Amino acid sequence: MAGACGCVAFVTDFGTDDTYAGALVGSCWRVDRRLRCAAATHGVPPGDVLAGAYHLKAAALAFPDGTVFCAVVDPGVGTERRAIAVDVGRVRCVGPDNGLVTYLWEEAAPEHRRCVALPVPDAASATFHGRDVFAPVAARLAAGAALDECGVPAGDPQRLGAALARVDGDVARCRVAVVDRFGNAITTLRVGDVGGRCVLGARWEGGGCDRVVRTYAEIDEGVALLVGSAGHWEIAARSAPATALGGPGRGALVEVLLG
Amino acid sequence: MAGACGCVAFVTDFGTDDTYAGALVGSCWRVDRRLRCAAATHGVPPGDVLAGAYHLKAAALAFPDGTVFCAVVDPGVGTERRAIAVDVGRVRCVGPDNGLVTYLWEEAAPEHRRCVALPVPDAASATFHGRDVFAPVAARLAAGAALDECGVPAGDPQRLGAALARVDGDVARCRVAVVDRFGNAITTLRVGDVGGRCVLGARWEGGGCDRVVRTYAEIDEGVALLVGSAGHWEIAARSAPATALGGPGRGALVEVLLG
Amino acid sequence: MAGACGCVAFVTDFGTDDTYAGALVGSCWRVDRRLRCAAATHGVPPGDVLAGAYHLKAAALAFPDGTVFCAVVDPGVGTERRAIAVDVGRVRCVGPDNGLVTYLWEEAAPEHRRCVALPVPDAASATFHGRDVFAPVAARLAAGAALDECGVPAGDPQRLGAALARVDGDVARCRVAVVDRFGNAITTLRVGDVGGRCVLGARWEGGGCDRVVRTYAEIDEGVALLVGSAGHWEIAARSAPATALGGPGRGALVEVLLG
Repeated sequence: MAGACGCVAFVTDFGTDDTYAGALVGSCWRVDRRLRCAAATHGVPPGDVLAGAYHLKAAALAFPDGTVFCAVVDPGVGTERRAIAVDVGRVRCVGPDNGLVTYLWEEAAPEHRRCVALPVPDAASATFHGRDVFAPVAARLAAGAALDECGVPAGDPQRLGAALARVDGDVARCRVAVVDRFGNAITTLRVGDVGGRCVLGARWEGGGCDRVVRTYAEIDEGVALLVGSAGHWEIAARSAPATALGGPGRGALVEVLLG
Repeated sequence: MAGACGCVAFVTDFGTDDTYAGALVGSCWRVDRRLRCAAATHGVPPGDVLAGAYHLKAAALAFPDGTVFCAVVDPGVGTERRAIAVDVGRVRCVGPDNGLVTYLWEEAAPEHRRCVALPVPDAASATFHGRDVFAPVAARLAAGAALDECGVPAGDPQRLGAALARVDGDVARCRVAVVDRFGNAITTLRVGDVGGRCVLGARWEGGGCDRVVRTYAEIDEGVALLVGSAGHWEIAARSAPATALGGPGRGALVEVLLG
Repeated sequence: MAGACGCVAFVTDFGTDDTYAGALVGSCWRVDRRLRCAAATHGVPPGDVLAGAYHLKAAALAFPDGTVFCAVVDPGVGTERRAIAVDVGRVRCVGPDNGLVTYLWEEAAPEHRRCVALPVPDAASATFHGRDVFAPVAARLAAGAALDECGVPAGDPQRLGAALARVDGDVARCRVAVVDRFGNAITTLRVGDVGGRCVLGARWEGGGCDRVVRTYAEIDEGVALLVGSAGHWEIAARSAPATALGGPGRGALVEVLLG
């Protein structure tokens, strides 16, 4: 892919009220101002690596092959945590090594997975590796550099245990990764996690539901289970945010009942 | 227009805390990564088609000829509502057929108006037509496709009755389409709706005003009427948000008094 | 720089819930649709020129040479305040003449500083100079125009007294310019303002601290002083937003103690 058409997409917890998010675009353009840059989202709740991992996966489904993600949810900036770039075949991703790439890595074909550890330049700010470390490397990759030119081969990246659902007999134990703008509680349970089995309902502290639907429009009242647009089971509502109708909150444990 | 310079602009109620908005850019770049993509706004209140119609019109005034809008405020996703693309002469727009294009359509020259109904691919997600139906078509149009290549000729799109003010003698009856970030209550009443007549004041449940000004700077205290930057009458304030000074809220009915 | 690769970055208080921010991109693309446009931030608190000045400086550090900023925090739109474009060497900036460029101007080499006053077209909206005056000029500059083609030479731009810290003996008096998303209180005190002297601590109405650190990760509990990524001293925290742990709020006066 020619640098002129390279795409960089951002997933961060920076919000958009400061210039932290904008600075990432600036950093990329300092490398090559022909790069296409897009906010996948800057709205990850501060420090929430699980939500970041989900959003990174959801975004990767929508962007074209070859997109380089710059994913920064980095409560450990300034500690010894590694800076990494990973290749998972269809896309690449640059960021701190704290589990953000859990879904990307787990869902990629093993033969396509590679990870390098990035050097941190002496001139990098002690507080803003997004601007000074991650975005410049993402830009170099999008402009045509190979992974090996940016760092040294490294072991597998960190994975986040909380991101992976566990099936025990007739119950899949998962948690709420994200509550979206519409109040839908998106869980860590993926369609593939339950194999071919039926989903019958779900329960969580203080609530539960036994309706399973295909679209939001089918939910007349209360909450129901459906498969969202990134292939994760969610507890959704239509007439009001699901969270306002007894749905589970961010981080809540959910048991999904299988048939 | 060459695809390399095609522009796509988004008007949605997705917010920016999830990756729904970012996924639209990804979908466009999957069609042609040279496309220019911009958020006109993703801040339409969830499900508020009237606010979406206003924002779509306001944005269309600012973007260049040939821009393709992808407008998604879509509480009916998953129902039988049609997916459409319209051409109104200067710009085109892709989205659900629920009234979002009311102002664009009403204000276009009849001879320039065309509407096609879009097919929904079998592979489309049941919950996210923005990513899987609307953005790809917007991208194809911006990259050079003709309207007829994207769908089949269809009757006029839905219009939203609530978007159109009604003049009865000395009173224009309208409603608040949008309360903006600064607290200004933008109504559905357009400059053209009152012909050459004078606006003398306005009243609404719990309030009213009889000052008419040309700029925000002229409002010393309280609220006043002025024509906003998209040609709609608004109830505005300067020292504080108009809504905090007794101005009408979102959706409120307003009677504007004409001389 | 060829127009095709010109970069325009925005710093405004428009928020992103309306189409005011999107309209700036539209205006630039009406001039030349090859221009690269990015939101440095649209999250300046409404009317807060000091916060705007800080964000403009912080963004300028990250964007490439030649970037044109369109900075609009403009409570005086419709008054006699001037519209200006300034060149500070590495970047240029277009906006109202109300102090937004204070840091850019003060920190530029005097021989590189130039300022022109812009004409306001008769057709410009009385309420939205961002769309009708500032963005079009920013676009022309980014597309290759010289400063002198856009306006007439003018005296120095307004500077904001509140943006500049004052050192009196062992105390630097400053204020909080911005409280960022993470609750960190970024002051107007720059590294260069204290010369080579040590910073020992800070006090403000209702609080104080005497810890100075280099990274957020070093702050175990409470608040501490550190130099942020734009070279300003800030009162920061890690376990919770600094503002929730007794840190100073937006606009608060802070005394920094020097060794």
